[in-house]
Amino acid sequence: MSDLLWPGDDRAGDLFTDASVLAAMVRVEAAWLDALVLHGVAGPDARDDLSGLIGSGDAPDVARAAEGGGNPVIPLLKLLRSRLHERNPAAASILHKGLTSQDVLDTGLVLSLRDALRRVGEDLGAQIGTLARLADEHRATAMAGRTLTQHAVPITFGLKAATWLTGVLDARDAIAAAAARLPLQIGGAAGSLAAPVALAGSPEAVRDLVDITAAALDLPARPPWHTARAPLTGAADALVTCTDAWGRIANDVLAAARPEIHELGEGAVDGRGGSSAMPNKQNPVLSILIRRAALAAPPLAATVHAGAAAAVDERPDGGWHVEWATLRTLARRAVVAGSQTAELLAGLRVETAWMTANLASARPGINAEQRSVAPQSAPGEPYLGATDQIIDAAIARTKETAAIARAKETPS
Amino acid sequence: MSDLLWPGDDRAGDLFTDASVLAAMVRVEAAWLDALVLHGVAGPDARDDLSGLIGSGDAPDVARAAEGGGNPVIPLLKLLRSRLHERNPAAASILHKGLTSQDVLDTGLVLSLRDALRRVGEDLGAQIGTLARLADEHRATAMAGRTLTQHAVPITFGLKAATWLTGVLDARDAIAAAAARLPLQIGGAAGSLAAPVALAGSPEAVRDLVDITAAALDLPARPPWHTARAPLTGAADALVTCTDAWGRIANDVLAAARPEIHELGEGAVDGRGGSSAMPNKQNPVLSILIRRAALAAPPLAATVHAGAAAAVDERPDGGWHVEWATLRTLARRAVVAGSQTAELLAGLRVETAWMTANLASARPGINAEQRSVAPQSAPGEPYLGATDQIIDAAIARTKETAAIARAKETPS
Amino acid sequence: MSDLLWPGDDRAGDLFTDASVLAAMVRVEAAWLDALVLHGVAGPDARDDLSGLIGSGDAPDVARAAEGGGNPVIPLLKLLRSRLHERNPAAASILHKGLTSQDVLDTGLVLSLRDALRRVGEDLGAQIGTLARLADEHRATAMAGRTLTQHAVPITFGLKAATWLTGVLDARDAIAAAAARLPLQIGGAAGSLAAPVALAGSPEAVRDLVDITAAALDLPARPPWHTARAPLTGAADALVTCTDAWGRIANDVLAAARPEIHELGEGAVDGRGGSSAMPNKQNPVLSILIRRAALAAPPLAATVHAGAAAAVDERPDGGWHVEWATLRTLARRAVVAGSQTAELLAGLRVETAWMTANLASARPGINAEQRSVAPQSAPGEPYLGATDQIIDAAIARTKETAAIARAKETPS
Amino acid sequence: MSDLLWPGDDRAGDLFTDASVLAAMVRVEAAWLDALVLHGVAGPDARDDLSGLIGSGDAPDVARAAEGGGNPVIPLLKLLRSRLHERNPAAASILHKGLTSQDVLDTGLVLSLRDALRRVGEDLGAQIGTLARLADEHRATAMAGRTLTQHAVPITFGLKAATWLTGVLDARDAIAAAAARLPLQIGGAAGSLAAPVALAGSPEAVRDLVDITAAALDLPARPPWHTARAPLTGAADALVTCTDAWGRIANDVLAAARPEIHELGEGAVDGRGGSSAMPNKQNPVLSILIRRAALAAPPLAATVHAGAAAAVDERPDGGWHVEWATLRTLARRAVVAGSQTAELLAGLRVETAWMTANLASARPGINAEQRSVAPQSAPGEPYLGATDQIIDAAIARTKETAAIARAKETPS
Repeated sequence: MSDLLWPGDDRAGDLFTDASVLAAMVRVEAAWLDALVLHGVAGPDARDDLSGLIGSGDAPDVARAAEGGGNPVIPLLKLLRSRLHERNPAAASILHKGLTSQDVLDTGLVLSLRDALRRVGEDLGAQIGTLARLADEHRATAMAGRTLTQHAVPITFGLKAATWLTGVLDARDAIAAAAARLPLQIGGAAGSLAAPVALAGSPEAVRDLVDITAAALDLPARPPWHTARAPLTGAADALVTCTDAWGRIANDVLAAARPEIHELGEGAVDGRGGSSAMPNKQNPVLSILIRRAALAAPPLAATVHAGAAAAVDERPDGGWHVEWATLRTLARRAVVAGSQTAELLAGLRVETAWMTANLASARPGINAEQRSVAPQSAPGEPYLGATDQIIDAAIARTKETAAIARAKETPS
Repeated sequence: MSDLLWPGDDRAGDLFTDASVLAAMVRVEAAWLDALVLHGVAGPDARDDLSGLIGSGDAPDVARAAEGGGNPVIPLLKLLRSRLHERNPAAASILHKGLTSQDVLDTGLVLSLRDALRRVGEDLGAQIGTLARLADEHRATAMAGRTLTQHAVPITFGLKAATWLTGVLDARDAIAAAAARLPLQIGGAAGSLAAPVALAGSPEAVRDLVDITAAALDLPARPPWHTARAPLTGAADALVTCTDAWGRIANDVLAAARPEIHELGEGAVDGRGGSSAMPNKQNPVLSILIRRAALAAPPLAATVHAGAAAAVDERPDGGWHVEWATLRTLARRAVVAGSQTAELLAGLRVETAWMTANLASARPGINAEQRSVAPQSAPGEPYLGATDQIIDAAIARTKETAAIARAKETPS
Repeated sequence: MSDLLWPGDDRAGDLFTDASVLAAMVRVEAAWLDALVLHGVAGPDARDDLSGLIGSGDAPDVARAAEGGGNPVIPLLKLLRSRLHERNPAAASILHKGLTSQDVLDTGLVLSLRDALRRVGEDLGAQIGTLARLADEHRATAMAGRTLTQHAVPITFGLKAATWLTGVLDARDAIAAAAARLPLQIGGAAGSLAAPVALAGSPEAVRDLVDITAAALDLPARPPWHTARAPLTGAADALVTCTDAWGRIANDVLAAARPEIHELGEGAVDGRGGSSAMPNKQNPVLSILIRRAALAAPPLAATVHAGAAAAVDERPDGGWHVEWATLRTLARRAVVAGSQTAELLAGLRVETAWMTANLASARPGINAEQRSVAPQSAPGEPYLGATDQIIDAAIARTKETAAIARAKETPS
Repeated sequence: MSDLLWPGDDRAGDLFTDASVLAAMVRVEAAWLDALVLHGVAGPDARDDLSGLIGSGDAPDVARAAEGGGNPVIPLLKLLRSRLHERNPAAASILHKGLTSQDVLDTGLVLSLRDALRRVGEDLGAQIGTLARLADEHRATAMAGRTLTQHAVPITFGLKAATWLTGVLDARDAIAAAAARLPLQIGGAAGSLAAPVALAGSPEAVRDLVDITAAALDLPARPPWHTARAPLTGAADALVTCTDAWGRIANDVLAAARPEIHELGEGAVDGRGGSSAMPNKQNPVLSILIRRAALAAPPLAATVHAGAAAAVDERPDGGWHVEWATLRTLARRAVVAGSQTAELLAGLRVETAWMTANLASARPGINAEQRSVAPQSAPGEPYLGATDQIIDAAIARTKETAAIARAKETPS
């Protein structure tokens, strides 16, 4: 997939594409079918892995037919059933039994979201590694600290990198927590598991079916959450926590890449950042595109929340439907920005000579606080407070597994 | 194009697809090239209409290459120039001269947006026709008026339709005003028209070039607006004014389609609204999908505004880039919802017997105000106030061309 | 009023305060009472101007009691009626007759919004004057043009000011159009004018009452718009169009005020922008606070739209209620930012020496385009294209009354 | 405090009022002063608890003066210092030493937010208790399950209550997690702790000062987070997770309170929900006002994120400033809605007779799925699947302390 109007979109690859969501929904049907067979609800002749029945070429037709019932599961199922019937009528007749469309769509979304969170998590990991290195290497690289756009007091670039790192670590924790809370959805038509129980014979049997399915998809089980959407809003919020952290970094690079400041620059990559008309230019393209994502993400998460807040009855009349494409867009935006940020940081040019020069130009004003609170200090003495400790603390935090991730969700 | 996660998306057809935006940008280059030739800036051998050089199959490659410079115009131009060079080197060497990427992309967006506003305008026209008919036919179809979910006083369905119509007419006026303000963008690298003037010899000559290009694309000319984005935010706001009006109608249909109320229903269409597991159901799918769009649209327009508000320098560092895909999404959402609303209204089932019955059940409470302010009126006497006049006023307004559209933008 | 957490809020004075909205609602009741008397629906003894009955001290009690019915009109009316009864029982008994709470609240909001739009309009006028002067005076003040944060081609500060001016003029047009569309709301309980007609005897008589009331409040009449909220969303959108334009200016000042760039600065005002700990600092406080408003405004307008889109029945169940405080916040934010922007521009320091120096440092790169498209030009020759014409066009536009404002709304 | 345009606002009492934020900021200064004395940085004569120096009457003046430096800490400090000087010059001269405005404001915000989260937490607790009771009592109260507004399959009201409860429990977990992450902010001018270290002599000594201050305010310590705002965005997201859950409940009550459905109603409270003109009406006012908050909250959190994503340098130029009032508004909206939801649930009228009747009317359609998947079941046999288990699981979860809360943040 590529997107002419969101340069860099192809970094997200197949993630959350129509074909990929379709495949995720087929995985859900397959896992449930397996469970029915394993548990004996269906006979052994119904065993089928559904492989090869649906391909990416089916996506347009299924998409087009989705309007009829308001969701793509209905036409997907029709197609799946008819193709399956030819090779395995027993499987075709039990397929999807006990499930409702929302079970399949929600779990398909969850699988796609989980992939997105993993991709984001990997890029966060790479960023964390780079930032820890930058913070460590530049502990003592003095530069002007700026507040409200003006020179404030001297800092080091290592401190700045540690601050960036703090934001990225917070994002990592948020992603880990959100990923741990993305559950399987199985509830049946109105969330009572009525059809599954009718099918399997008892609530206990359904519990087993759900557990088998959950294990197959490697998702936590959870009571039906058709109208309790915190797992999805939590994922959305976590993704925005990432774009916030990346936007914050991009803003610094964009300010520092201004030619008059020149303290930071993007790594030179062939074909990146040039201008045909103005060969002099080297535009900080990655930072620009990251900042773009940071602008786009918060309202997308707000839409996911608005959908959640609009839930009504046992399946909502629009609040549910608005989530799907919104989550997809948000997830792809975040994955793209995460990859761009990892690359930005890996290639970041740190112009220490400019830092030194700008800091020198900022004197004596920038030393005013130091003269005031530490009048006894020598004029050229560094004024770095607990910079080393702050950097060390941030680096130490990179070595933790996110605390939050350790707190396993209690099964409920 | 279709979108598995936004059922109904194919109603928007090719509008704003990658291929369509690409074609729009080629149209901009072609119009400018024409102008250069017509005005004698380029020799007659440079005449070329660029047709056939770029096809929809080029979109993925251009999209992929767009990240390098942060926008798709750079790779598009490279491709265009190389292919053009083979058949018309003179054209290839003058192509795009004087323009900047933003000129081409902004005007391409404007052309795509204009198509969207036209599509929306057509569907608004259809809705207006249907609503005028419904308001007129049901002037006297008594039903319960409801406020804060509770029975208030009797109204007629014609009054309700007139109220819906008011919202749709306001949307029509907003779309007409916004469409009239979508201009050509030609400014050169920093909005001073420096390169065009260097090329054409004088500001007056450039004025001619701009006018010729504007005429060819049927767009108003305007001084460069690279960082003054009200034309785009205005279009976004107008689209949301539409989804507001449609959402408001959908909400009424959704409430009235509840089986216990049953006063309105969606027209039966084969394959729409059914449920495989629950054949009893006839879901108000169009209304659900319209409501979905009404939830999604406001935050998208907010993003376009956020981008506009983030503008800086002579071309912004992210604020510009966030607009493109956001406008596309908003435009397609609105076009789809407009088409769905037109169909919803055209097929609307008005269950007058249920209206009568619900109104009867609401008595005597619902007549309390009447007894209080018109105690002399007979118990069964209609209590409709100026319903006829309100309906007539709304119908009269359908016959106006939007007042706003008549006020031609002063050329500036 | 003041707001500790929104510094500068007191610039909005009493606008939209509880006391001021209360007074606006009393004005609505008074205008309606007058109309009833003038038209003979009420006897001459019912004449009363309601003055002095409700004061700002009543606001807390009314506010507290507003939860009972979900809106403040009910307790306001109770209080008003009881106090009026003591001095004028005839007036007390006819007061509010025919109206519904929403009529009073909506019209009170409209009056408050109109005040806000006027205040904004005045500040826009001041900004326009200043910007026209800056654009004219600095036609030839050369500086570096920047795109994507990097040096692009030379421009003049006059061109930049003209670009700012374009945004502000667009905002002026948007405000004028929105102000012209803010109407009186009179519809009665379910928007049919049933109670007014029962009271006055005929729809024609009610038309007169409405016209008299509209004239007294200097508002256009309009058929009931209880659930067709484009007048309010239009006002919200216009306010955001302003904060977009101001935010765009503030961004430029903030970038240019960075010490290494130093091309623009805020006027020195005693007690503004200082830092106790760092006396060296002169923070661009106005720009910072303006930028803050530009961040806050778009989501507020999105909320007003979300409320409009949630309308249902003849009076909505929450969609209406969310508008009130949201419009107030948005209006005050905009009024404050408008005042700050007027002051920012009036006191703007244009550091031409720094512009010259930065431009010099940007050479030869910044002249690359010129060398390419105008290789025959002398090295030091200005490269300003149609800068004069663009500035002249913007200045000419300042002299127009907004085109949009001339298109009078057709009475309907 | 009360708010005429947000009925019910007074439920939030003094929370986050100007006076209360002012007091919170004084607490921060007092805790730091104490720490300086305890640690020996200041002499014993500097001991002072600052009590009585600043009162709520000071808020307007401080608010007005806040514009000068862009934040209220500067004028607060000036006032505090001058008053303190009269009674304790030693304290006055050391007051605030080592801190920066942002330290005081951020920690003041955190203290106010913590109060809000606690208030919300208490109301969530009450809601959880009520919902557990409702779920348990109505395990077998049969009613129509509805999906996409239409009858689907039978459920029980206990199941619906358990579903509501799931959302509320998720909100509880979100609030607990967010509350645990609200830290003390102490960083000094540019987040390096330079001034505190200069003052106290070593990073280790500052660590002690920070720990003492953190303990006094009962807040976790954390490295400076001036531009890493996840603690605040996390709190905002958690509050929206609450309003989502409450809005979802309100939507159900509003649908079910429609007279034709009549399955749920708000408890009768004197003076609530009446209409003067229409005495027949009993409006579901609490639900309406809750739904209002659910519409307002997501965009407010989006603004907090937008502010976080706009962070730049060592203190942002507007991104910081937009957070304060936005967090206040969001917090008060949530606290009010939480209180209203607790009251709504406590007084909820469950109209079992109407549930029974509506379910009967929905037959035979609503039994179609049962006939299909459990054809052997007797016609009148309940079809409730795992309803009991789902209810039990939800009730069991009420007894857990939020899992997330147990995962103590690692000090860093």
